[in-house]
Amino acid sequence: MSYCLGIKTSDGIVLASDSRTSAGADQVNTCQKMHSFVIPGERVLVAVTTGNLSLSQSVFTLLRQDFDQGRGLAAAPTFYDAVREVGEKIRRVAELDQEALEKAKLRFNVHFILGGQIKGSEPELYLIYPVGNPIRSTPDSPFLQIGESKYGKPILDRGISYETTPIEQAAKYALLSLDSTMRSNATVGPPVDLMLYRNDTLEVTHRRRFQGHDSDWMELHMRWEQALRKAIHELPEVNYDGPAVSRNL
Amino acid sequence: MSYCLGIKTSDGIVLASDSRTSAGADQVNTCQKMHSFVIPGERVLVAVTTGNLSLSQSVFTLLRQDFDQGRGLAAAPTFYDAVREVGEKIRRVAELDQEALEKAKLRFNVHFILGGQIKGSEPELYLIYPVGNPIRSTPDSPFLQIGESKYGKPILDRGISYETTPIEQAAKYALLSLDSTMRSNATVGPPVDLMLYRNDTLEVTHRRRFQGHDSDWMELHMRWEQALRKAIHELPEVNYDGPAVSRNL
Repeated sequence: MSYCLGIKTSDGIVLASDSRTSAGADQVNTCQKMHSFVIPGERVLVAVTTGNLSLSQSVFTLLRQDFDQGRGLAAAPTFYDAVREVGEKIRRVAELDQEALEKAKLRFNVHFILGGQIKGSEPELYLIYPVGNPIRSTPDSPFLQIGESKYGKPILDRGISYETTPIEQAAKYALLSLDSTMRSNATVGPPVDLMLYRNDTLEVTHRRRFQGHDSDWMELHMRWEQALRKAIHELPEVNYDGPAVSRNL
Repeated sequence: MSYCLGIKTSDGIVLASDSRTSAGADQVNTCQKMHSFVIPGERVLVAVTTGNLSLSQSVFTLLRQDFDQGRGLAAAPTFYDAVREVGEKIRRVAELDQEALEKAKLRFNVHFILGGQIKGSEPELYLIYPVGNPIRSTPDSPFLQIGESKYGKPILDRGISYETTPIEQAAKYALLSLDSTMRSNATVGPPVDLMLYRNDTLEVTHRRRFQGHDSDWMELHMRWEQALRKAIHELPEVNYDGPAVSRNL
């Protein structure tokens, strides 16, 4: 498995990804899962991906070929068109590989999150399913997750608000969501890639890769664990004087 | 789904369970999943369960019948024997129901956690699988989870230490683990049942049921969310001056 997420609040977008890729527990590698397609001042499109690495690499290869020739993601007039472009490439790869995978009892499994902005339209954040169909982040659902998403969901549910969470804070939530997942699940691992996009800048000014031994990462991890323990310690003691569990069935 | 957990630290045991039971999204009910078998001063055995409610109820019915006649859990000479007694009852119910369930394409799915102490031996915490085989909590694995366990695992991973977590603190972790799960997953729901056992007391002195609207529960939930937001706010800002993500593949 792997784990990626996108957060969209009122002032920007954050994308983050792990880099663990494995085919079984005895074949563990790392691979960057964040890819950007940028024409500065005109469009910023950043994608993260989970699922079968062979499939996502094929999709990115096709997207990059087009982009480098000024087509596809380089030319899509709206963000929705760009999202559909990713969906089309997924379907192209499905034509190439799905039948053979299913014969081998493997699932055609690949998910994408695409975030960014095209000049003249609003910033957007989408999730694209293996079938190629997309869903969009809205103020009611300000984050999207793909891959091993359960461990890192509670902290996002508790903290992220489209209206009130500054995008710099959202970046911390994204890192903590990934840290929680890596702490609890061995199939998600470093390096962690992070990208922060501020609305209407039309360029990527904030990006960062954290290796597992990165001192900034270690400090975040340790300070967070200390803060959690302190917060729990300061919660009121459990009151056992309320209604009790009945003894039997 | 549902979610239950047990924590064993050096001075006691905590068990906690949700009460959501559902057969599909349109048939949602509540049912207590914590059951105790106690002979004060002699033995305390408390079980929580997830999985098919029909199966767990059958297992508890068989266990209770024996217990009320001074057999089974009432007579098991060691805690391991008591755990095996639960396993035997699971196997008995499997003989009754497994074939019919599988014909209907349903899984024979039922899990138990059993915690407590029998006079003359150490306190113990075990998980018992649908096949009837058990695993035991150890100082290296001081908590056991069954059911929808991923959402509530990070907080336990970060905070619970067999040697250093007082059992009163462990009770807070158990409640927060359940709260995180209920916040993020609609198939886990209140009331929450909590039991705290202090080593060598051989009676249950601390138990509590929290309804969703319980004022103690609401206070815990709100203070925790506030504490988390404050803790995240106080973390250092993300440093984007380190190594960056490479632009392309």
